[in-house]
Amino acid sequence: MSDSILVLNAGSSSIKFSVQTPTGPDTVRMLAVGQIEGIGTHTHFIAKSADGAVLAETRWPDGAGPANHDAALHVISEWLDGFLGDARVLAVGHRVVHGGSNYTGPVAITPAVMAKLRELVPLAPLHQPHNLAPIEAVGTRYPGVLQVACFDTSFHRGHSFAAEAFAIPYKFYEQGVRRYGFHGLSYEYVSRRLLEIAPDIAHGKVVVAHLGNGASMCAISDGASVESTMGFTALDGLAMGTRSGQLDPGVLLHLMGSLGMTVPEVTRLLYHESGLKGLSGISSDMRDLEQSADPHAAAAIDYFVYAIRKQVGALAAAMGGIDALIFTAGIGENSANVRRRVCDGLQWLGVDLDGDANDHGADVISAPGSRTRVMIVRTSEETMIALHALEAMSAEAVA
Amino acid sequence: MSDSILVLNAGSSSIKFSVQTPTGPDTVRMLAVGQIEGIGTHTHFIAKSADGAVLAETRWPDGAGPANHDAALHVISEWLDGFLGDARVLAVGHRVVHGGSNYTGPVAITPAVMAKLRELVPLAPLHQPHNLAPIEAVGTRYPGVLQVACFDTSFHRGHSFAAEAFAIPYKFYEQGVRRYGFHGLSYEYVSRRLLEIAPDIAHGKVVVAHLGNGASMCAISDGASVESTMGFTALDGLAMGTRSGQLDPGVLLHLMGSLGMTVPEVTRLLYHESGLKGLSGISSDMRDLEQSADPHAAAAIDYFVYAIRKQVGALAAAMGGIDALIFTAGIGENSANVRRRVCDGLQWLGVDLDGDANDHGADVISAPGSRTRVMIVRTSEETMIALHALEAMSAEAVA
Repeated sequence: MSDSILVLNAGSSSIKFSVQTPTGPDTVRMLAVGQIEGIGTHTHFIAKSADGAVLAETRWPDGAGPANHDAALHVISEWLDGFLGDARVLAVGHRVVHGGSNYTGPVAITPAVMAKLRELVPLAPLHQPHNLAPIEAVGTRYPGVLQVACFDTSFHRGHSFAAEAFAIPYKFYEQGVRRYGFHGLSYEYVSRRLLEIAPDIAHGKVVVAHLGNGASMCAISDGASVESTMGFTALDGLAMGTRSGQLDPGVLLHLMGSLGMTVPEVTRLLYHESGLKGLSGISSDMRDLEQSADPHAAAAIDYFVYAIRKQVGALAAAMGGIDALIFTAGIGENSANVRRRVCDGLQWLGVDLDGDANDHGADVISAPGSRTRVMIVRTSEETMIALHALEAMSAEAVA
Repeated sequence: MSDSILVLNAGSSSIKFSVQTPTGPDTVRMLAVGQIEGIGTHTHFIAKSADGAVLAETRWPDGAGPANHDAALHVISEWLDGFLGDARVLAVGHRVVHGGSNYTGPVAITPAVMAKLRELVPLAPLHQPHNLAPIEAVGTRYPGVLQVACFDTSFHRGHSFAAEAFAIPYKFYEQGVRRYGFHGLSYEYVSRRLLEIAPDIAHGKVVVAHLGNGASMCAISDGASVESTMGFTALDGLAMGTRSGQLDPGVLLHLMGSLGMTVPEVTRLLYHESGLKGLSGISSDMRDLEQSADPHAAAAIDYFVYAIRKQVGALAAAMGGIDALIFTAGIGENSANVRRRVCDGLQWLGVDLDGDANDHGADVISAPGSRTRVMIVRTSEETMIALHALEAMSAEAVA
């Protein structure tokens, strides 16, 4: 096996990983991908090759598996040692949700950096601690190996004050209550892909719709993010699988004031019981809703699509125009229905969808004469992280 | 003096009024306008003629004036009796902020209607009780006179589910947590004016920006509201004088969770300390900010203008296009600077502003060839209420 970069994406009860080997100064190839989930409960570990073949799999009886992230990382690294054989781990790239206001790109991890990243925990209390958890364990397991933190926020730094602030007293902005934006690794990857496959578009005004279980949209002008629908948290913007998206602040005051709900109750409601799941009462999964004959499922899809269309208009306004609309992530890449329905209301923006191309999931799904080009770009946050780690290795080698 | 319609708009510590006389089956003329403010504290009453001449004015020493809305109404009706002489009060039209889901237009007040309007108090606890307060006193003062409730919400009824719902569990929608939209009397008045002065536009796709101390925008297609930026409450949408406008729900969870603020504290923050005032730290008044050399004032104006531009895009998307952009209300009618800056980013939507026409506050401020027409329409919610009262009188006469 070849010397490789390990990419880790640690959540509250899971660690996703991939193994990627450099194939050139700025290219990588995926060798394996996997995850360990249900940490502390009914744990399941699986590793697959790039073509989807199962390389290893373990299921533990309840409570018998790895009890915490350290133990879970041990499982991954034991497997990795066998997988790599004599090959080395060149670097480890971590997905870290929050880079605050200062990190405008990935950063090599040092004790000083770790201290700064811990300071950001209050900005993302549900995610940041889990993202940081494996970093020390990796340092122990692979001493001396370069570790790189790659942020969901950094692609969006450089937004204007108007795009980054909320209209509340300015002191909150100074205290860090800002519209950071997320899914930045996905948007950055899509932007790089556009440079390769559609350079004219890559230098134009592009709206990217990252539609997965989490969903957001980004206005990218000449490769730079100028606005995003997600704000201070990953609750803002579009309705998602189980998250509400944007909400009149008066609704929260009503829930907590008139209805007497507590902050933890509202947090749970808005993160886990809302969005497609809450509107439909059926499922958070678009595939389930598309299969359902229930009018609430149809209403939830209507809502999802309508919110996306409105944001296309808003993001185009943020840039002063639109040259292309890009769909990415699970729903964006796979639901021809959602893409068609979004585009059906966008003829006024010069969108002319090619129905057949859309049904077949082609790269370009607008008709040849369409003033606004519509494309599907398959995103890969793990590839973006590996590329960042590779770049950090080069920078370390030069330094 | 002529028989007249009395229009009342009662707030927490003020009652605004106007006196309007019918001049035809669907036209009225303003005879007088005034207000009593500071009810219960340092009260001030003033009445002016339509051309601005002071007809009557009283200032009371602290605590010596009318102590409550009933007493304040007595002051107004005493003045009105003298003003009208032998002429009669034909009807009284009330501005009522909330008509809930059912009232799609104004309604003649009966005991049964009053009961329903009181049921809506929880939806607008800060405004509805004050709006309803004078109705019983009027009934006593002018027995048998028709009273009509005119709602800020009813022009927006008929929105699609996607425009009216939030992506939270459906039961909340059933319980009335919906995007009602407000400023409907202003939008309705502007729509009627457009039918007179620009009928081609009135039947097209129009975005109206009602920019006052409260601010919202509305997408109106062929005279019907299809979307508005205000939602369940008047907090949603644009940043305003002292209100935040839309806000990542995660910010409220942060304020109440991490920062430990209470619901009353956050309510006060978002209604009274945010918006232009909060961002600038200087003033809630656009005129003050435009005069200021402080960079925070400039940043607050940037924010206000940027949010409007994004909503133009979003509302155009809600309608599938835009034929005209209309500015109205205090800032919309009077700030050439705000209008210019909004339009400066909208060339991509076919907006071509005529700088001179804009500076002079002309009715049409776009250039002759502009694909999207831009206009100033002076709104008058009190005229709309008087017209509704007149229509209700005709309906009563027929019935």
